[in-house]
Amino acid sequence: MGSERYLNQPAHGDYMRIAQVAPPFEQIPPTQYGGTERVVSLLTEELVQRGHEVTLFASGDSTTDARHIPTVDTALWRDPEVGNELMYWTITLGEAYRRAARGEFDIVHAHLDFLTFPCAELVDTPTVTTLHGRLDLPGLQSVFARFPRQAVISISDSQRAPLPAANWVATVYNAVNVPSLRYHPQGGAYLAFLGRITPDKGLEQAIRIARTVGMPLHVAARKPLRGTDTPQDRADWDYYRTVIRPLLREPGVRFVGEVGDAEKSDFLGKARALLFPIDWPEPFGLVMAESLACGTPVVARRRGSVPEVVEHGVTGWIGETDEELAHACTRLDLLDRGACRAAAEQRFSPSVMASGYDRAYRSLLDPDVHRSSALSRV
Amino acid sequence: MGSERYLNQPAHGDYMRIAQVAPPFEQIPPTQYGGTERVVSLLTEELVQRGHEVTLFASGDSTTDARHIPTVDTALWRDPEVGNELMYWTITLGEAYRRAARGEFDIVHAHLDFLTFPCAELVDTPTVTTLHGRLDLPGLQSVFARFPRQAVISISDSQRAPLPAANWVATVYNAVNVPSLRYHPQGGAYLAFLGRITPDKGLEQAIRIARTVGMPLHVAARKPLRGTDTPQDRADWDYYRTVIRPLLREPGVRFVGEVGDAEKSDFLGKARALLFPIDWPEPFGLVMAESLACGTPVVARRRGSVPEVVEHGVTGWIGETDEELAHACTRLDLLDRGACRAAAEQRFSPSVMASGYDRAYRSLLDPDVHRSSALSRV
Repeated sequence: MGSERYLNQPAHGDYMRIAQVAPPFEQIPPTQYGGTERVVSLLTEELVQRGHEVTLFASGDSTTDARHIPTVDTALWRDPEVGNELMYWTITLGEAYRRAARGEFDIVHAHLDFLTFPCAELVDTPTVTTLHGRLDLPGLQSVFARFPRQAVISISDSQRAPLPAANWVATVYNAVNVPSLRYHPQGGAYLAFLGRITPDKGLEQAIRIARTVGMPLHVAARKPLRGTDTPQDRADWDYYRTVIRPLLREPGVRFVGEVGDAEKSDFLGKARALLFPIDWPEPFGLVMAESLACGTPVVARRRGSVPEVVEHGVTGWIGETDEELAHACTRLDLLDRGACRAAAEQRFSPSVMASGYDRAYRSLLDPDVHRSSALSRV
Repeated sequence: MGSERYLNQPAHGDYMRIAQVAPPFEQIPPTQYGGTERVVSLLTEELVQRGHEVTLFASGDSTTDARHIPTVDTALWRDPEVGNELMYWTITLGEAYRRAARGEFDIVHAHLDFLTFPCAELVDTPTVTTLHGRLDLPGLQSVFARFPRQAVISISDSQRAPLPAANWVATVYNAVNVPSLRYHPQGGAYLAFLGRITPDKGLEQAIRIARTVGMPLHVAARKPLRGTDTPQDRADWDYYRTVIRPLLREPGVRFVGEVGDAEKSDFLGKARALLFPIDWPEPFGLVMAESLACGTPVVARRRGSVPEVVEHGVTGWIGETDEELAHACTRLDLLDRGACRAAAEQRFSPSVMASGYDRAYRSLLDPDVHRSSALSRV
């Protein structure tokens, strides 16, 4: 439970006492799915490296160099016996804000959407929340209208559009583990698709685009789960069965199944381009940054964060229609793979992300207590 | 938003400033379903009658003589456009505890299971939570283990069994609206079943018991919803289709559909007895108290709260097997309908319930501030 310096001793100088509050669904870091958990892990370890005193609230099977307060024994997606998820939100909020009220942190950085807002209002320590999902959901505006002062961070500027009145303090782009994603200077001949099989992600369109330009398409994805109980799962299964499965038999289309972290560099790096013909307001799109880190440019539909992550004509091509995206696939030799890798290093590395959050935290701290931060406004 | 006396003015003497925090699913009071909401309504209005300063946090379509802080515009079960229910828990917690932190209440009485616990720890005002549901759910013990000091009230002693270590401050039995439930001194010839059609409630057993003793059975229930998406709804529909529907054609069985408040007195009061052959840990069982208020004794299986609500040999018969319950139906002339009505008045009236909660609240208040309460421990 930590030494005395955790208690009631505001940080001075360069380091801060930072709580990272993660969702309880996946281990930190996750082994497969879990984009939010992956980003929380990269941020936490980078902040520890920089000398901050970081406390991570996460499932007990997580791994971190930070002080670790377990919220559940086992991440919820790994525990079939789990009860109502409300129980675990409640435990996480209790553990984090009980300690915040004791003055153990300079700042609480939450990754639980709006769930921290009621507790955050009740303690002196400021909370800042990174919103990791799409924000055009029914009812969300009414939640934010009730908590107008809660500080929030977007993962792209475009993500903010449905909630213009929220108390936005920064956009901090997500990071990917650039050092572990190997740069492939040559690339290969195929187009790559990596993502869930759901209409938003555009696999159907990717296959048609690849067929139009006569290029092979390699598809890395998990098949939707069959026989599960949510309407979303059933819709995804129907989409796979009726729309996608027949198209996977088209010439040049190769379904490689799910790729883990170890295979991801090769899958992305040996591609000619990542094909990303999404049709939803993507808040960030980690796979675009991963592809760039491997040196592979991105051909994407202009939705959500795409124009912020991809630089049109430098690290990829952005279009609107399937025809425009097909045409873009014929112009890939105009793009430099080195520029893709460099963009990932300069914009989406853990170090750059941590610096963005460091500035955001300092902007919320009392300048009298934290003189070192007085100059660094986000 | 109330007058100045709401702010930072602890109550003295006999009245208290009480927050009632209701779930957002149904109007207060509900028009049909919603046992918790019905009890919250009766309690709120009775406390107002007694001169307490009551603030009710509930959906905007609720009706109350208390100060009303709307949490959602329309109760969630009445609004098909509703988003994620987490949003509305968050709004409710924010509205209630922001005001609690300002000192607007002497006590917060919550009806949101464990959801208030993290906020409750962060304010000086004590919170007491009535637990309205069954407590043998997976994971619930781990939640209570993290919040050992949160004061909780049971609606029956038996309800406490799965959580013996919780900070129980009282058992307060639920009330029914005794004055509006008409006393039928004569009763009638049929056995009554009133409840959802789900295996726990024992409609199958009720039909077999009625057939065994050759008495008519009138069944008041809504048919399960067909084609909805939760596993529970689908299981209930299958149970209805395969088990119950054929049995409803048995001689003497009459399905009367859903009964509203207006018809309930006649349906229950004109019965010879209420048949309640449940097989689950019923935490209270409002229909038993409603039946007694109408003068109708109860024949029930010994589960959960049954031995606390029904006095064996006075207001009903309690048994274990279907055979015992069938035999009990032949001995109903030994029970006095006047005793049933009297038991409802003496044990399950809103006034008795409000007195129980009044004592519980005072037991949690600082005795130096609330001298009038120093003698009344629950």
